[in-house]
Amino acid sequence: MERKEFRDLVSPERAHEAVGSLELSPGTERVSLADASGRVLAERIDARIDVPGFDRASLDGYAVRARDTFDADEASPAELDLCGTVHAGETPDVAVDPGDCVAVSTGSVLPPGADAVVMVEETEERGSTVAVRTRVAPGEAVMFAGTDVAAGDRALGPGTRLTSREVGLLSALGADTVPVHAKPRVAIVSTGDELVRPGKELDPARGEIHDVNSYSVAAGVEEAGGEAVLYPHVGDDYEEMEHLLREAAADCDLVLSSGSTSASAVDVIYRVVDDGGDLLLHGVAIKPGKPMLVGRLDDAAYVGLPGYPVSALTIFRTFVAPAIRRAAGLPDPQTATVSGRMAVRERYAEGRLRLMPVGLVDPGSDDREGPDDLLVYPVDKGSGATTSLVEADGVVEMPADVEYLDRGETVEVALFSPDLRPPTLLLAGEDDPALSRLLDQVTRPRHLPVGSREGLRRLRKGAIDAAVVAGPTDQATPSTPVAEWDREWGLAVTEGSEIEALSDLVDRDIRFVNRTTASGLRTSLDDAMGELAVKRGVDRHELEARVAGYDAGVRAHESPVRAVVCGDADAGLGLRATAERLGLPFQSLGTQTVRVLAAPARAQKPGVRALTDAVAGGAAFADLTGYPASSANDETR
Amino acid sequence: MERKEFRDLVSPERAHEAVGSLELSPGTERVSLADASGRVLAERIDARIDVPGFDRASLDGYAVRARDTFDADEASPAELDLCGTVHAGETPDVAVDPGDCVAVSTGSVLPPGADAVVMVEETEERGSTVAVRTRVAPGEAVMFAGTDVAAGDRALGPGTRLTSREVGLLSALGADTVPVHAKPRVAIVSTGDELVRPGKELDPARGEIHDVNSYSVAAGVEEAGGEAVLYPHVGDDYEEMEHLLREAAADCDLVLSSGSTSASAVDVIYRVVDDGGDLLLHGVAIKPGKPMLVGRLDDAAYVGLPGYPVSALTIFRTFVAPAIRRAAGLPDPQTATVSGRMAVRERYAEGRLRLMPVGLVDPGSDDREGPDDLLVYPVDKGSGATTSLVEADGVVEMPADVEYLDRGETVEVALFSPDLRPPTLLLAGEDDPALSRLLDQVTRPRHLPVGSREGLRRLRKGAIDAAVVAGPTDQATPSTPVAEWDREWGLAVTEGSEIEALSDLVDRDIRFVNRTTASGLRTSLDDAMGELAVKRGVDRHELEARVAGYDAGVRAHESPVRAVVCGDADAGLGLRATAERLGLPFQSLGTQTVRVLAAPARAQKPGVRALTDAVAGGAAFADLTGYPASSANDETR
Repeated sequence: MERKEFRDLVSPERAHEAVGSLELSPGTERVSLADASGRVLAERIDARIDVPGFDRASLDGYAVRARDTFDADEASPAELDLCGTVHAGETPDVAVDPGDCVAVSTGSVLPPGADAVVMVEETEERGSTVAVRTRVAPGEAVMFAGTDVAAGDRALGPGTRLTSREVGLLSALGADTVPVHAKPRVAIVSTGDELVRPGKELDPARGEIHDVNSYSVAAGVEEAGGEAVLYPHVGDDYEEMEHLLREAAADCDLVLSSGSTSASAVDVIYRVVDDGGDLLLHGVAIKPGKPMLVGRLDDAAYVGLPGYPVSALTIFRTFVAPAIRRAAGLPDPQTATVSGRMAVRERYAEGRLRLMPVGLVDPGSDDREGPDDLLVYPVDKGSGATTSLVEADGVVEMPADVEYLDRGETVEVALFSPDLRPPTLLLAGEDDPALSRLLDQVTRPRHLPVGSREGLRRLRKGAIDAAVVAGPTDQATPSTPVAEWDREWGLAVTEGSEIEALSDLVDRDIRFVNRTTASGLRTSLDDAMGELAVKRGVDRHELEARVAGYDAGVRAHESPVRAVVCGDADAGLGLRATAERLGLPFQSLGTQTVRVLAAPARAQKPGVRALTDAVAGGAAFADLTGYPASSANDETR
Repeated sequence: MERKEFRDLVSPERAHEAVGSLELSPGTERVSLADASGRVLAERIDARIDVPGFDRASLDGYAVRARDTFDADEASPAELDLCGTVHAGETPDVAVDPGDCVAVSTGSVLPPGADAVVMVEETEERGSTVAVRTRVAPGEAVMFAGTDVAAGDRALGPGTRLTSREVGLLSALGADTVPVHAKPRVAIVSTGDELVRPGKELDPARGEIHDVNSYSVAAGVEEAGGEAVLYPHVGDDYEEMEHLLREAAADCDLVLSSGSTSASAVDVIYRVVDDGGDLLLHGVAIKPGKPMLVGRLDDAAYVGLPGYPVSALTIFRTFVAPAIRRAAGLPDPQTATVSGRMAVRERYAEGRLRLMPVGLVDPGSDDREGPDDLLVYPVDKGSGATTSLVEADGVVEMPADVEYLDRGETVEVALFSPDLRPPTLLLAGEDDPALSRLLDQVTRPRHLPVGSREGLRRLRKGAIDAAVVAGPTDQATPSTPVAEWDREWGLAVTEGSEIEALSDLVDRDIRFVNRTTASGLRTSLDDAMGELAVKRGVDRHELEARVAGYDAGVRAHESPVRAVVCGDADAGLGLRATAERLGLPFQSLGTQTVRVLAAPARAQKPGVRALTDAVAGGAAFADLTGYPASSANDETR
């Protein structure tokens, strides 16, 4: 196997320079005013007309010569001859001579001779005359031509981002199209033989995974003001890859390749760009990231993103998004940073700048506290983990020469977006289908399904609001119980298997799928095995050794049941709710309690109380055996 | 003329309730993952597959049994038999027995028997064997099935706003479509006989103006997460209006009518909704705003916005946008407020809640200062002025019982958007085409074209960074000159008119268009008239009285020249640059200097320095007679 290694890592600054040196110049285009919101003006807009284009009544009332009202008051109103009416949208067919008045609406053209408008509330119509009970100054209630915008005025400058307000001004100026920066077209080429587009079935035996980067990077491109163009997926074949990349380069301003983590796919891309274009760099000293190609291919700029989703989005956000924004004429986004204290100590000493994804939690109890009190915890499940993407709220920079951040140390967190708000409730521990539903009734919850034991450990460290614990635990952790419910656990089995008790698992030749020891289900199963062993007068481990698959547990709470559905196993450890939902017979082995244990200081947090209320409401426990409201892919497809 | 009066004004709270009581329930829809960014999940997404779906190598290297490496180190590497290769995307065709290893790439399926991966850098291939120079623990460099997401995990909750990060997770789960809140469809019906769509020529004599609200409110609808549907413009006819409103109500979740300020149009709409639907309220005690209709029409919600652009957008933003956001499932936007000090005293005592549009200026010199030091000045050119929309940065609430805000008083400004940044340079004073170009080279400038005198007045009050002054001024204002340039002024005249000097204006029967006394051009013309009067030994005002139109000046700097172009006048006061650009002969009367005078404390502000640099650069003065780069509407259409 040939392997391409990336040893010449450049500094992040150098990488910024290299991407900055690629010219992304999509030019300008004219768009209709209806499509202008969110775009950026490419040129200055000068007014070519006066707004309003005429002297305009700004009230409903009577157009007068102000001089005729100079002696008027409540006691002795001025009596003026009513000699006509001008509606909005009409050319005046009457003039206001001394002693006259003309009825006008808001927006009417001021008739010749008039220089002011008296509001209707200050008048009284008396047949052919109008009594005016107040004096008005010349110009009163009149908007003179050009008062809003004058022909020749600089209306909007280049670089102005258009919102509803600017669209209003442009409408007033009569613009129906406006010159804006064109959106840079960004090709997204996904590579790697193991990648399958979302929506297509995977063959896990072949190591297939869904292509994560294409859609997520495309969304990032759109967020940065570009237009994403998705190209068909391509394998690791040189000819095919070259053809596709050149086609993309011909059609787009920037080509992003992305997708594969495998060295062979990266190597093929490397050779295509190196042979046919101009490769500026191929590695940056940053974590996550490292492999990153920057160059030109024919007339387009080219950036190769790493294959791992977290690395790809980090490199995209750090180096590529700013270039797309610049090309689209958008300003750098308002940096939104909050400061917080590290919830745990974090070591890192690889000598690369680390952009550490972190989650936030507000340890405050019932009162809202300032952002300085936020706790910051690293979210690092490896660059390959897509959940890291959504379990983090922002990034803490650890410079290359910093070896660790201490617990309690104050750090600055660059939020993923300025309007991001931290979760109101941070849980960790057991997974449970009722919990999933309960959390639907909490605003912005976050649950880390790390298993009961790990949940309790994090609770002790003060890193979460509450732990979710199922089954027996031998650890005494200071905590406040805030909710609990029961669930029935046991074995999901194949139709007609006649597995009726735990002893069948031990005594018969059954392919079994277990959970890992992190799960409360496993703890209950282990305890039941212990009881059976005592009854039989043998060692528990002896019994366990007789069950094929007992030791090799899986983390996923539905997976044992799904293995039975697929025919890969005869029995799987799980919940009645899961077995019935997936249509399998279920052999109950007992009932266990799921408990939510809050850190005492946080038991009154609004998020914790919302969860308590949801449990008390009970709705989440109805029909747990039905399919959940929605799911990411359809089983029956 | 029948007039509808709105006397029963309800409180803003009551108006919020009324709009809240209209049910906007657009339902849910499934969108493809490519279109999901920015949308809001309507349902919880549970994982239906394990991610990864298999035990996966997370490095390039060799799959081994960890036990075989327990004694390995640099000095005595473990020598393992290389018995095959597994690429990413391949089903392993080989197992790892004790003493064996298999070459794997990042992403490969871990072959049966193996429980760890040794990274390639710690190995050396020696023909058919591999020397492993380090010990690895079981599970090292392996991502076990379900480690990222486990089948059954709660992946994303209802109400989650989808960004590139969530799209990444959904991709990993294999979702190709997702259930999201549908965008509420919002009909925009523009009414009023005087309104003309942007892009169409106006007839100012008839009092026509461009329809501002349709596009600006449509942009507001899209910003709030709705889908705007523009309906054809309709006049004040009852039948026609009823037909259109009912058509809109049948097709949309919410109908917004807007456009006309005239009482007759408002009255027709009022009757249509009152007759055919259910009118909940027809006026709110708020400024700007007041006339606001809320009700139901057939199966749709209905809100009538005031006609004035500033009122319409304020009512929309305050009452309607939150309802659209709720219907779209979007959270309330992060409120972005800054505090600042009032730059001037502002009185208001109409007993209505006032949402006062304000501009911001940072008085800081060269150092950046905190937001507490921002100066806040009211921007109130009347609700009819579209420029108020773009000259303001946010809104200060003045409760109904507050009569005034004092100069220097601290106020909270709700910014129009969280990423809004105040201008770097705030100018007021003379308008000038060279200035327009110079400002293109300054980031976020704001110039208020109020004329030289008013500019100086504002400079004295400390309300601006610098005044732009042209021609002679008799006022001594402490200031620091930061830039100046000359411009040639005189008369734009009709072809063949043979107007050659100021005396022609006085002595011949010429229709003249002047500027107002706010303009520096007018001051220079007045002075020239004074000199001519001295020469002739007469009173200046006597000469001026002989010029038709001398007293009735216009504010707009191009308008006198445009009046000549249209044939409405024989001569207009203006600049050579303007006359030549609009293709008219020009009779020079002199040269005047345009000066930018900064408040001494702000002369070193980056924005001021950017303007000084731009003047020094000189590019803005080239080709001033050519058409500007762009314009809002095309003269020749």
